[in-house]
Amino acid sequence: MKDNKPTPKWKLKLHEVIYEADTPAGKFFDVALLIIILISVALVMLESVPEYFLKYYWEFYVAEWIITIIFSVEYILRVISIKRPKAYIFSFYGIVDLLSTIPTYIGLFVGGANLLFAIRALRLLRIFRILKITRYIGESNKLMEALKNSRAKIIVFLFAVLIICIIAGTLMHLVEGPEGGFNNIPLSIYWCIVTLTTVGFGDIAPVTPLGRLIASCIMITGYGIIAVPTGIVTSEYSKATSFKKPIKNTQACPVCNETKHLDNAEFCHNCGNKLNA
Amino acid sequence: MKDNKPTPKWKLKLHEVIYEADTPAGKFFDVALLIIILISVALVMLESVPEYFLKYYWEFYVAEWIITIIFSVEYILRVISIKRPKAYIFSFYGIVDLLSTIPTYIGLFVGGANLLFAIRALRLLRIFRILKITRYIGESNKLMEALKNSRAKIIVFLFAVLIICIIAGTLMHLVEGPEGGFNNIPLSIYWCIVTLTTVGFGDIAPVTPLGRLIASCIMITGYGIIAVPTGIVTSEYSKATSFKKPIKNTQACPVCNETKHLDNAEFCHNCGNKLNA
Amino acid sequence: MKDNKPTPKWKLKLHEVIYEADTPAGKFFDVALLIIILISVALVMLESVPEYFLKYYWEFYVAEWIITIIFSVEYILRVISIKRPKAYIFSFYGIVDLLSTIPTYIGLFVGGANLLFAIRALRLLRIFRILKITRYIGESNKLMEALKNSRAKIIVFLFAVLIICIIAGTLMHLVEGPEGGFNNIPLSIYWCIVTLTTVGFGDIAPVTPLGRLIASCIMITGYGIIAVPTGIVTSEYSKATSFKKPIKNTQACPVCNETKHLDNAEFCHNCGNKLNA
Amino acid sequence: MKDNKPTPKWKLKLHEVIYEADTPAGKFFDVALLIIILISVALVMLESVPEYFLKYYWEFYVAEWIITIIFSVEYILRVISIKRPKAYIFSFYGIVDLLSTIPTYIGLFVGGANLLFAIRALRLLRIFRILKITRYIGESNKLMEALKNSRAKIIVFLFAVLIICIIAGTLMHLVEGPEGGFNNIPLSIYWCIVTLTTVGFGDIAPVTPLGRLIASCIMITGYGIIAVPTGIVTSEYSKATSFKKPIKNTQACPVCNETKHLDNAEFCHNCGNKLNA
Repeated sequence: MKDNKPTPKWKLKLHEVIYEADTPAGKFFDVALLIIILISVALVMLESVPEYFLKYYWEFYVAEWIITIIFSVEYILRVISIKRPKAYIFSFYGIVDLLSTIPTYIGLFVGGANLLFAIRALRLLRIFRILKITRYIGESNKLMEALKNSRAKIIVFLFAVLIICIIAGTLMHLVEGPEGGFNNIPLSIYWCIVTLTTVGFGDIAPVTPLGRLIASCIMITGYGIIAVPTGIVTSEYSKATSFKKPIKNTQACPVCNETKHLDNAEFCHNCGNKLNA
Repeated sequence: MKDNKPTPKWKLKLHEVIYEADTPAGKFFDVALLIIILISVALVMLESVPEYFLKYYWEFYVAEWIITIIFSVEYILRVISIKRPKAYIFSFYGIVDLLSTIPTYIGLFVGGANLLFAIRALRLLRIFRILKITRYIGESNKLMEALKNSRAKIIVFLFAVLIICIIAGTLMHLVEGPEGGFNNIPLSIYWCIVTLTTVGFGDIAPVTPLGRLIASCIMITGYGIIAVPTGIVTSEYSKATSFKKPIKNTQACPVCNETKHLDNAEFCHNCGNKLNA
Repeated sequence: MKDNKPTPKWKLKLHEVIYEADTPAGKFFDVALLIIILISVALVMLESVPEYFLKYYWEFYVAEWIITIIFSVEYILRVISIKRPKAYIFSFYGIVDLLSTIPTYIGLFVGGANLLFAIRALRLLRIFRILKITRYIGESNKLMEALKNSRAKIIVFLFAVLIICIIAGTLMHLVEGPEGGFNNIPLSIYWCIVTLTTVGFGDIAPVTPLGRLIASCIMITGYGIIAVPTGIVTSEYSKATSFKKPIKNTQACPVCNETKHLDNAEFCHNCGNKLNA
Repeated sequence: MKDNKPTPKWKLKLHEVIYEADTPAGKFFDVALLIIILISVALVMLESVPEYFLKYYWEFYVAEWIITIIFSVEYILRVISIKRPKAYIFSFYGIVDLLSTIPTYIGLFVGGANLLFAIRALRLLRIFRILKITRYIGESNKLMEALKNSRAKIIVFLFAVLIICIIAGTLMHLVEGPEGGFNNIPLSIYWCIVTLTTVGFGDIAPVTPLGRLIASCIMITGYGIIAVPTGIVTSEYSKATSFKKPIKNTQACPVCNETKHLDNAEFCHNCGNKLNA
């Protein structure tokens, strides 16, 4: 369905600056936002180091509010510059953008010593702002396509891995028992996952000959079956890259925010509205 | 050979519900069973945690018997609804289904304090019920085909890996000796498997310069030859996916239980009997 | 050059039994030898466990001599049954077969308490008998071909890995220093190999922030570049499997011991002599 | 633009010996240099072991100066034998060659006990001499091409990995807290990188059930997504090897030092000057 009310010019202009990257202003907006995101993530990280937090408490507090206000303004601009705000608000990026500002505001109203942990948790969740950056990782590439095509098979594979881990974990619990650190089945399954994925922390390790024999089998299995997801992705990716040409158009429709338009597209393939020149 | 005695209608109906998934009743049966399997596996896991076991002893006991009775009824229904029960009883799933119920019954008759461990072991083996779930992981897919085709080569590869581990393990035992934790050859071979598969627990680690040099060679070998199974599976999988179309038919023959029928099949390709509509 | 002296019939017969596997006698010989090899390797392993060695000293001693005599007889038969013994004696298998018996004989003549370790080392080297088994791992398959084709590139890759490890190891030694366990450059390089190959023992681990940053880079590099050998082998293997048919002929030329004859070959492609029927 | 001044004959000759490897003299020069590089790297390594350094102080000192002088002479010859020295001086190899000699000379002028560490660091940087060796690892091969083509995608992938690590690290810090060793977010992110890349040192490991659950998810993710770079490189490498023939020409232009000329090239494809016969 086509929306016939003409969009005001300032909205079109704002949309171009905020959502697209093919004008100097749009590019500047993107780069500036990127830098602010990185700064905000760095701040969350540094804040978690006790010595920095105690020393620079006020600096962190002020910087946090400045960033929150910038992100709030950005969110409001994004909502008003688009013709159908709901398309943005309930999209992945809309939710991420909202969640980037909310925790700081909630921290204002929720106080009291007892709730310290909850606030701390909320403040740390600001790290999810890093997801705002995914906007800049080309989403229309073939990698995503290959991953989408192989998703079902990889889930089946990971499920098979989980079944192996559950059975092997139970066997290890039976064979090694609490002396070897395999105190209960969930813990033994955790150990199996650590071993099968070839991570191998070594905090828990078998000590009996039979346990070590089973562990060897698990390790060799893990070493061998890593070939399966690799085979799937490689095959799908080869297929994906042999057919289609990449799309370089970075325009987003000012009405429905649809991207992935053909390079020479003049109208949105989703809602039929005119794209910005 | 064709079996000419007509199958009673209720048997056909029951077979459709239990063995197939393309009617609402069949789908409901499958989903319900899936949930019970997951609950039973979760119970076995939680039971292994001492604090939960002591606290909820009776709850575990009752839940275990309810699940065992459900699985027993399922097993009997599966046996009577199929025309040639032996085809089911001696199949992989027939054995798994039987083993899912037996341990609890044996626990009834075998008692006494001395046998506690044996019973405990038996009870834990109920975890194999997770294998009942494999029924729902599409078995007719190309992944299995690729794995089957590459099985022989991967076994040769794993055998070569084992030979490398045996020789390298003996060398490490010679070079490091008991001081480094390489007390005997089987233990050193275990360490080599841990290292070659890039797991690396760290409970045993070389301390002499020569031992570390050999360890470096083992690690680089392991890092390099992981390419071999990957190459095999990728190549076989690419071949498997480039030729054939997937089969979506979930029907199972009511006489011999054969699956993998073509989408438009009306008769079983194995025994020639009519498939359910 | 063709050797025109006719080979005696018993030699041809013996050659067929010992070197080939397509007659019942030849198959029996191969399986029997395989079992003896496995037993001898198991004995070397068990002997290295102190408690077993002390308890069953005489049993090990007797079994060792029986196996050594069997292998000596096998070696002599192999030498006399072939027309050009040098082709066998200086081949990979000829040397392995000889080394499988020598250590026990040397142990006879070299005695004295001071030489205990040397003898022990010699005795342990009998583990190389496991290499006798490689005869049974199909050598003419495409896997070897793919590995041979990608050998040069994988060596270049491993060399690049080594250069990365040398430079990163030096940096880690500079940054972490002796406190973190990075006492000297060779040790730091060893740690880098452990890390880059994703083994990660954890006996040495960085403790300074900068050291951990560099370690993160090394790990991510190692995680990323494992794709390189995999890509090479997969590509070569795909090419190797798409062109040629496998050779199933197990015959070996009675004169020069060349294998890999075409399925319908009647004469050796290497020396022109007649193959056994 | 073509440079018309004729190059003196001795310069052409010297260029051929130093920069190319297709004459006996050029090959000898290359091999000799390779050996000296390896010796110098071995010296830097051994020097870092305290016991060797104290014992063989003067031997190290003398050897170091001999090597530095050889490398200085090589550097000067390289500069004068090429027509446009800047092309060499500011190239990767030009900088590496300079850095191989500078640290020793600086060590002469900068003295005093306080600066010992800085000098030592500079001296250690001599390890970068190993990079001089990269000249001999065929640079014109397809591997590099495949890596170059997949560079952009692998960077996107590693960036995605980093985002996962930042988010997962923050969650682990929240869940495990300082008791489990997850003292602050940067440390937790470091642990996530260690885990996701399947290295798994084990110096930090989760101890709470929830922490272990998240850790399991991270490990399985890491085990699954290693397929992505592998798929990319394999696909690109397959493409690279299926089209082009390898270039075997080792000639380098005497004017601009460009390599990668076609096998039958007579003039440099970069500056148009005549190549050595």
